[in-house]
Amino acid sequence: MPVNATHDPALTSWVASAQESSFPIQNLPFGVFRRAGETFRGGVAIGDQIVDLGLVAAHLDGLAGEAAHAGSASTLNGLMGMGAAAWSALRAALSAALATGSPLQDAVSACLVPQADVEMGLPATIGDYTDFYSSIHHATNIGRLFRPDNPLLPNYRWIPIGYHGRSSSIGVGPESFPRPRGQKRPGEDGVPGFGPSARMDYELELGVFVGAGNPQGEPIPMDAAEDHVFGICILNDWSARDIQGWEYQPLGPFLGKSFASTISPWIVTMEALAPFRTPFTRPAGDPQPLPYLSSDANAAAGGLDITLETRLSTEAMRAAGEAPTRLSLGSYRHAYWTVAQLVTHHTVNGCNLQPGDLLGTGTLSGPEAGMEGALIEITRGGKDPITLPNGETRSFLADGDTVVMTAWCERDGAVTIGFGEATGTVLPAR
Amino acid sequence: MPVNATHDPALTSWVASAQESSFPIQNLPFGVFRRAGETFRGGVAIGDQIVDLGLVAAHLDGLAGEAAHAGSASTLNGLMGMGAAAWSALRAALSAALATGSPLQDAVSACLVPQADVEMGLPATIGDYTDFYSSIHHATNIGRLFRPDNPLLPNYRWIPIGYHGRSSSIGVGPESFPRPRGQKRPGEDGVPGFGPSARMDYELELGVFVGAGNPQGEPIPMDAAEDHVFGICILNDWSARDIQGWEYQPLGPFLGKSFASTISPWIVTMEALAPFRTPFTRPAGDPQPLPYLSSDANAAAGGLDITLETRLSTEAMRAAGEAPTRLSLGSYRHAYWTVAQLVTHHTVNGCNLQPGDLLGTGTLSGPEAGMEGALIEITRGGKDPITLPNGETRSFLADGDTVVMTAWCERDGAVTIGFGEATGTVLPAR
Repeated sequence: MPVNATHDPALTSWVASAQESSFPIQNLPFGVFRRAGETFRGGVAIGDQIVDLGLVAAHLDGLAGEAAHAGSASTLNGLMGMGAAAWSALRAALSAALATGSPLQDAVSACLVPQADVEMGLPATIGDYTDFYSSIHHATNIGRLFRPDNPLLPNYRWIPIGYHGRSSSIGVGPESFPRPRGQKRPGEDGVPGFGPSARMDYELELGVFVGAGNPQGEPIPMDAAEDHVFGICILNDWSARDIQGWEYQPLGPFLGKSFASTISPWIVTMEALAPFRTPFTRPAGDPQPLPYLSSDANAAAGGLDITLETRLSTEAMRAAGEAPTRLSLGSYRHAYWTVAQLVTHHTVNGCNLQPGDLLGTGTLSGPEAGMEGALIEITRGGKDPITLPNGETRSFLADGDTVVMTAWCERDGAVTIGFGEATGTVLPAR
Repeated sequence: MPVNATHDPALTSWVASAQESSFPIQNLPFGVFRRAGETFRGGVAIGDQIVDLGLVAAHLDGLAGEAAHAGSASTLNGLMGMGAAAWSALRAALSAALATGSPLQDAVSACLVPQADVEMGLPATIGDYTDFYSSIHHATNIGRLFRPDNPLLPNYRWIPIGYHGRSSSIGVGPESFPRPRGQKRPGEDGVPGFGPSARMDYELELGVFVGAGNPQGEPIPMDAAEDHVFGICILNDWSARDIQGWEYQPLGPFLGKSFASTISPWIVTMEALAPFRTPFTRPAGDPQPLPYLSSDANAAAGGLDITLETRLSTEAMRAAGEAPTRLSLGSYRHAYWTVAQLVTHHTVNGCNLQPGDLLGTGTLSGPEAGMEGALIEITRGGKDPITLPNGETRSFLADGDTVVMTAWCERDGAVTIGFGEATGTVLPAR
């Protein structure tokens, strides 16, 4: 999806709050919302407002109008299934309608709902959730805790490693959940421990929403992969490291992950991300991907420069009126595998993707200190606790801790766009 | 769910084909069906007929009528979500209506559809699919291939090991699918192979359909676990062993499994299985389950004696008019973990189950030769090919091979009930 008129940095909106916000007219992310007593329906963020897709559909022609109508349902699965041409037509029409000087200003003004008035919902019925492991820095940091001399497994540089996750417990932030209970590694008596997790962690990821699916048995080649991607949100894939550590051999993570995952409410489309592409590169000495995971377009611009930040707010900090403190600042550009490679690899065996499926990138850590996407990396398995500005320390998350993840794209010559926040709070175990 | 009047061995149906069939009046399994040109809807098998739930609802009172109405939808999720009291009321009412001498015979006769006339559909929208590993014999057989001296990992006897599977590629048999392609372990040049799987296998499992779900954060205790289970079908969790072997460290199976899974079309309810319960026991010297996985009811009758058979039909056999040949004959009573333990463990961390979720038992192998639930066990990793009656040999499945899985329950003093078949065919890679 090339840069086009909808990305023009000179473009402004008659919605005054759009300028200087996370949601300028160059962004136009999708979500579902409701006011109290209403049913959920699709909308597009502009500044501090939401364009109600059901209301605006009457003012849009052709494919754009059809797409807006599909987007007015209680989830975006129908719009996602329409494919890239429909999303693009809707974006172009909304861009024109919201632009300063648009003849539709009066009509579309009546389709706006203030974000302050609404509750955001899960934007799609997520049929399947797959979590990848696409940051080599995360894989290395984690592997080093277990295998100091040989942190990366032999398959890592060849396969976009992934596994199936739990869909039912994915929620939209801000949300909270009780600290999970479970079995932990046995002590000296040989009997596993059981109780609330003592090693609660977050994982900073991006979530990739599938748009149009593929029929079972028909892989998606690299050159078509991004046509099947609707957009990207922030994903916190909460992890109970002690439960995970005891259960995960030989079949992978299960209850250490399935109690909760939190996404941000707005999905930024792949088209909105067009100005923020980066080349796909491999470090010197690393193998090039196998042919089925290679394409010229991916080499030229398969990556995405999305800045990622994690902040922590403890109960004591909130009581003292202190702002959340930063735990990490990194970028998705450091990932070892691109979105297109995740999609193509996922389907190479004939697996069918469906509209609304969610692909997690895996924890996104960077090459330098301060870029780690999980506490287990920052504290080296809990051995090196961090000290917060108020003097509290953390090896892992405490009850009442709120984790706030944000993401944005900025680049010379482009208007900065934001993803909003994925926010979640760990409550005491029940 | 105790044995009651619906299990009375003396009970017969005015549907003459019911007697001596897999679907006598003591069974009454649920599925969804359609005739050509119709939409899918729920039904109950009786002999070689199907009771159309939408049609029969008008003849049933109270909760039974409401349950039949819910079951008339295109999937059974609504009926599943109503809970055990509703399923039981519907079973009692259908048992009475189908019994020899029922005053409803004429009315219900008009609600019957011959099974020969219909196509069966996926009985539920499966939100999440979880695959367990509940046969210690399978875990030991597989582990021995990799770790001859120490086949079982330390967590096996404590945790019902499980992992998340792929929902989208679950289909109802009979079905066929192309042999999957994928990466395989590197040879001497260090570069992974890529191509059609050369180690295609089946896995003989049972599939447990969740009925009423649980709210996120609220575990299901052992004594309530089976109230959340709608019923059981046969499940073939096809596996590409070479793809799986290269990809599965450290996060578990992914593309080696996600290309296809095949279930049988009829779900046998937990109530229908009441006469076939077995005590839950641990071999001498094995630890007892932790308290959260223990209950008196589970100890007394947590197990199920379900006979399981796998047969193979090759293209050459079909061309010669030869019947499928048996590969294994075993029973679910050999499993190390019960259905209730799978449900309770799955939710102990607060994970929410939803109506229509599917829990696979994992491959069900028994303690003796001839009871192995997968070719990799029978052929010891492909090293000891089997010879079929027609002289063909198999280390793994060949193109055109059809795997037929059947299951039934038989016991003195009870009428034998069947599950039907889960049948699938491996087609050549595309």
